[in-house]
Amino acid sequence: MQQRNKAMDSIVPADKTIQPAIQAHLDDLTKPRGSLGRLEEIALQYCLATGNIKPTLGKKKIFCFACDHGVAAEGVSAYPKEVTPQMVANMLAGGAAVNVLARHVGAELLVVDMGVDDPLTHAPGLCRKKIRHGTGNIACGPAMTVAEAWRAIETGIDLAQTAHAEGVTLIGTGEMGIANTTPSSALFAAFLGCPVADVTGRGTGIDDASLVKKAVVIQKALDMNRERLVDPINTLAALGGFEIAAICGLVLGAASKRIPVVVDGFISSAGALAAISMNKTVLDYLFFSHLSQEKGHRVFFKRFGIKPILDLEMRLGEGTGAALAFSIIEASLKIYNEMATFSSAGVSTGAKA
Amino acid sequence: MQQRNKAMDSIVPADKTIQPAIQAHLDDLTKPRGSLGRLEEIALQYCLATGNIKPTLGKKKIFCFACDHGVAAEGVSAYPKEVTPQMVANMLAGGAAVNVLARHVGAELLVVDMGVDDPLTHAPGLCRKKIRHGTGNIACGPAMTVAEAWRAIETGIDLAQTAHAEGVTLIGTGEMGIANTTPSSALFAAFLGCPVADVTGRGTGIDDASLVKKAVVIQKALDMNRERLVDPINTLAALGGFEIAAICGLVLGAASKRIPVVVDGFISSAGALAAISMNKTVLDYLFFSHLSQEKGHRVFFKRFGIKPILDLEMRLGEGTGAALAFSIIEASLKIYNEMATFSSAGVSTGAKA
Repeated sequence: MQQRNKAMDSIVPADKTIQPAIQAHLDDLTKPRGSLGRLEEIALQYCLATGNIKPTLGKKKIFCFACDHGVAAEGVSAYPKEVTPQMVANMLAGGAAVNVLARHVGAELLVVDMGVDDPLTHAPGLCRKKIRHGTGNIACGPAMTVAEAWRAIETGIDLAQTAHAEGVTLIGTGEMGIANTTPSSALFAAFLGCPVADVTGRGTGIDDASLVKKAVVIQKALDMNRERLVDPINTLAALGGFEIAAICGLVLGAASKRIPVVVDGFISSAGALAAISMNKTVLDYLFFSHLSQEKGHRVFFKRFGIKPILDLEMRLGEGTGAALAFSIIEASLKIYNEMATFSSAGVSTGAKA
Repeated sequence: MQQRNKAMDSIVPADKTIQPAIQAHLDDLTKPRGSLGRLEEIALQYCLATGNIKPTLGKKKIFCFACDHGVAAEGVSAYPKEVTPQMVANMLAGGAAVNVLARHVGAELLVVDMGVDDPLTHAPGLCRKKIRHGTGNIACGPAMTVAEAWRAIETGIDLAQTAHAEGVTLIGTGEMGIANTTPSSALFAAFLGCPVADVTGRGTGIDDASLVKKAVVIQKALDMNRERLVDPINTLAALGGFEIAAICGLVLGAASKRIPVVVDGFISSAGALAAISMNKTVLDYLFFSHLSQEKGHRVFFKRFGIKPILDLEMRLGEGTGAALAFSIIEASLKIYNEMATFSSAGVSTGAKA
């Protein structure tokens, strides 16, 4: 508890006093002012978050948290829950989409067992942080106890702080857990106070009948847990998952060390939303990688006035969106660090530039 | 003329007979069907274009064509025309945005002088294909003769075919030329048959008064050249630029060798539009990298039902958007080539997958 309080207390807003110096450098690069659009915005945000006028990008690391969900028993997913440990094994063998994309962008990938309902005995490279063999069924009661939720959050904080010590300067979130769009939708509905229908989507690809059933299950989860939804930690414990809570902790821990975090997709955004609900200042440290095809993601972005970096119509999770966005963020920092200036290159500035 | 006819005659439509095999492989990868969205579409298009079920990505190369424009004398740009040779020098020294982004994605960059109004005497690394010291002022007459336009197109065809011989498997377009959004807007208006106001934007960043003046200049260019706008080559010669014609040729040449081309922004799209107007089949070989902030780009995409890969609110050109899109396209091919399949990884398929 001391560690988490210390981390949460040490989250400071981005340092706006250095903004004029950063903007002056961006405007001195050999291009019309603002002509690199989001790349310039991203470089500015990265500098402000890290408090550094001359930022360098060190190691990049994606954390993929795996977990099973009691609510899978309600038939809310197109896949059987055995797929969670199977996909963990696939990731450890390097064959999942997130492996390919992490390699592509030169990022390390750490797969973390937060609560897979399988002993995962032969799993070289797995980071073992299992809290329990799957969460409780949120349609019948809470997903986890508040103590378990804090433990999962602390795991995330600890991993972020360890990454900081390792020289990681950009962190990505990811997750694997059959049925985990269901608790995520429930969290969006609870935190944003919006109708279940607005934030319930097809997940891995369910049909119309299953979509209706899923919405009913989510509404039931909200009703069954209504009296628990009194504050962010109780809401997260009641409706979330161990991987979602770990993502919440990863965001808090990274922000406490001023490491920018790239939030993957819909489920990762639910974890980030829990962290934002606890401390809105973490927004200064967050990049949102892409607009998921999962309905509800758009509702979240609209509420916070956030523009995600990419829109590639993806809906896979794992950290795949975060990996792709790493490449754009790295490009932004290289633009900031490597481009010539008007004076150094002997280029005339425009009359109106 | 023989070379260009041979190239244009050898452009064949993408091979749709291999589509079922490509789609079957995409659906066998360890992810829900279609969950990687545009990445899957891009991999499919790349395979179809190259006619290869097992594509490998070889060298990647961006061509940045530089040119001056007579219409700059009308005051349509925020920058003086001296900036064209200055930026060419900056690119040859490695300090421009496109240099940074090409390095970031591991692509070669070739800077090609198509018609800069400067001898560019000290310019190591420059590919010299100058046709004339700048085009004619389109507000007073044609930009170039039809023979000059064909020469510029043949330069592009030749560079694409040479790249093919060098093992290049992905080509990016780019350009540098003060005032070149003006001829591009004129080409969009002529080829799409839409009002000048719909396709005229702020270029490098002109103010309201200059924007109005620019639209008047473009309308004047269309009126002055009206009787010349009888077919694609005459239209391109009347309203275009040497760099725009070279991009048109690059597209034709790449398509003739079945090399996919990544079209950069607004000006590159004008060159691509000229190629499409000559032979619609080239669309099978084109990826559109990003939605430019330049007004009119959206009109073009809407007309052809094209979704650009990125929307980062950029408006720089040079090949910067093409470079960033290279990274996404390469990611798509790695997904296709490197991911495990359901059977190989021992992962259960979903009931509905």
